[in-house]
Amino acid sequence: MRIAIIGFGVVGQGLAEILRDRAAELQSAHNFHGEIVAVATRSRGTLYHPDGLDTAQLLEAIGKGHLGHYPHVYGLTRNWDALTLVRQSNADVVVEVSPTDLQTGQPALDVCYAALDSGKHLVLANKGPLVVAYEALHERARLAGLRLCFEGTVMAGTPVLRLAQQDLAGCRISEARGILNGTTNYILTQMGTGLSYAEALQQAQRLGYAEANPAADVEGWDAAAKLVILSGVLFGTPLALHDLDVRGITGITPQDMEAARQAGERWKLIARVTPEGGSVRPMRLPLSDPLAAVSGATNAITYVTDLLGSVTLVGAGAGRLSTGFAVLSDLLDIHRTS
Amino acid sequence: MRIAIIGFGVVGQGLAEILRDRAAELQSAHNFHGEIVAVATRSRGTLYHPDGLDTAQLLEAIGKGHLGHYPHVYGLTRNWDALTLVRQSNADVVVEVSPTDLQTGQPALDVCYAALDSGKHLVLANKGPLVVAYEALHERARLAGLRLCFEGTVMAGTPVLRLAQQDLAGCRISEARGILNGTTNYILTQMGTGLSYAEALQQAQRLGYAEANPAADVEGWDAAAKLVILSGVLFGTPLALHDLDVRGITGITPQDMEAARQAGERWKLIARVTPEGGSVRPMRLPLSDPLAAVSGATNAITYVTDLLGSVTLVGAGAGRLSTGFAVLSDLLDIHRTS
Repeated sequence: MRIAIIGFGVVGQGLAEILRDRAAELQSAHNFHGEIVAVATRSRGTLYHPDGLDTAQLLEAIGKGHLGHYPHVYGLTRNWDALTLVRQSNADVVVEVSPTDLQTGQPALDVCYAALDSGKHLVLANKGPLVVAYEALHERARLAGLRLCFEGTVMAGTPVLRLAQQDLAGCRISEARGILNGTTNYILTQMGTGLSYAEALQQAQRLGYAEANPAADVEGWDAAAKLVILSGVLFGTPLALHDLDVRGITGITPQDMEAARQAGERWKLIARVTPEGGSVRPMRLPLSDPLAAVSGATNAITYVTDLLGSVTLVGAGAGRLSTGFAVLSDLLDIHRTS
Repeated sequence: MRIAIIGFGVVGQGLAEILRDRAAELQSAHNFHGEIVAVATRSRGTLYHPDGLDTAQLLEAIGKGHLGHYPHVYGLTRNWDALTLVRQSNADVVVEVSPTDLQTGQPALDVCYAALDSGKHLVLANKGPLVVAYEALHERARLAGLRLCFEGTVMAGTPVLRLAQQDLAGCRISEARGILNGTTNYILTQMGTGLSYAEALQQAQRLGYAEANPAADVEGWDAAAKLVILSGVLFGTPLALHDLDVRGITGITPQDMEAARQAGERWKLIARVTPEGGSVRPMRLPLSDPLAAVSGATNAITYVTDLLGSVTLVGAGAGRLSTGFAVLSDLLDIHRTS
């Protein structure tokens, strides 16, 4: 399988590391050989070689700050932009892992259309294009007979979408509710130990959990974007961000935390979606709810089903290798079925 | 897909109910049509019709206590025993859901061999044959090019085996630990509210969670049998029951419970397996462990992986529809891949 990676930050590098370190095992256990033929970054160069790039040298070059450090070899192209790479390369699959823009989905959305229009399967860890154009992307993929996979957009590599789509096939899922943002869960967990919101946020920023501008996380929009994707997967009707009732955690006070503690409850930012709509809201959960026990940067989701009752999956919600694995699991899925 | 059901108790009837109530949806969403052609019970009769049995009438007959109440129709055979049904019927898949014998695996084990030897895929919710002959069954299925599925043997329909085998493919799982027996978890949860072991056991028996003879549950053997199956699935090396270090919950006192409570911990019967071996033991878990929050008859498993860290699945561990769904999910899997 020939792979073009658009965006070569944490996730793209995580995927490259896994492909480098696990090549023999992927070959023997899954008859899978992944060859990175193209890599595009916005400001750190691009590379294309139809016979494949050397993954170790690729990681070394980006480690030095620019793909220009990749050694020159016969047949290498350095000056194509992302869209040209997607259209003109011989990749079988385009992996879109560039930064997320929830308003426009761009520039990734154009990359996605270009991939599907040039006959390439598409794997995303970037939520933006799906939040903006879930149905249009699915329709184009369907008409072209191509796969569109995005396990990494919700809870990174923890296989929440595959659980719903494949493992629970045959059940009816009436509701999903979860802790879909690690930053806010970390902050709420720390506030539970007595820190103020501002102190907990600072700590999350020091540890790299929260961005310098934490608005998307703490105001609930990151979790809301994941609900848009979940509503499409579970109910076939992707909601729009503006359809959701979204509240963040910025208004929670130490007094609120203490009141919950005394009632034997915990504050969690709960994202919830049903066929009727969705919401993101801080809620007090009793300790008997499996989501109440999910602490720190961990994420979790509960599916409410007719035949199985509630099924809860708990795991990492972010991370270099975890999200890299999400992309790999999509590549393996495409490999199995094509 | 023509199905022979061997054993028509809670699980077999749950499967029949699902097939009856969800026929249209299974057809439209999965292009799946399941037709029950044969049903065998040990003491309540057997039925075979090569064109299929009427599921509603089947459930009505067993509801009256004996399959003899099924109406006589042209082509119906009533006097074949289970092995004859398995060998001579036109079923594509044999579903073995008769009672479990962890010592001999019988009489189900002979049913399993007969199914594979006569070219039929095999789905089990009965642990016995796998605990006794995991490798022999897999080898026969492999040689015959047949599927051997058993999602329902561990945590009923909660898809723990599919999670490990399919969703986490590409990760290395180094350890599984879980709460794999609902009866003991219910008893421990009740003891946590101040009941003695004897009182909690009685309550579990009144509610139907615990058998009149609760030894297999409370002494840990039910959980141990599930570890045998998990070790085969995860590591390819099924342990034998006698290889495991198995302790139950019968020795836990109210004083033990109180000591854990004061330390902010909870007693759980933890089944754990690694490539080196397995154990079932009551353990005190800190509340930060996702397994500590799993209460009542609910089950859970944590897989420790290299790329994703820990992934925990929480859900029902038993139940008519839940285990019926487990069998259905295996049937759908066989349908997709054959």
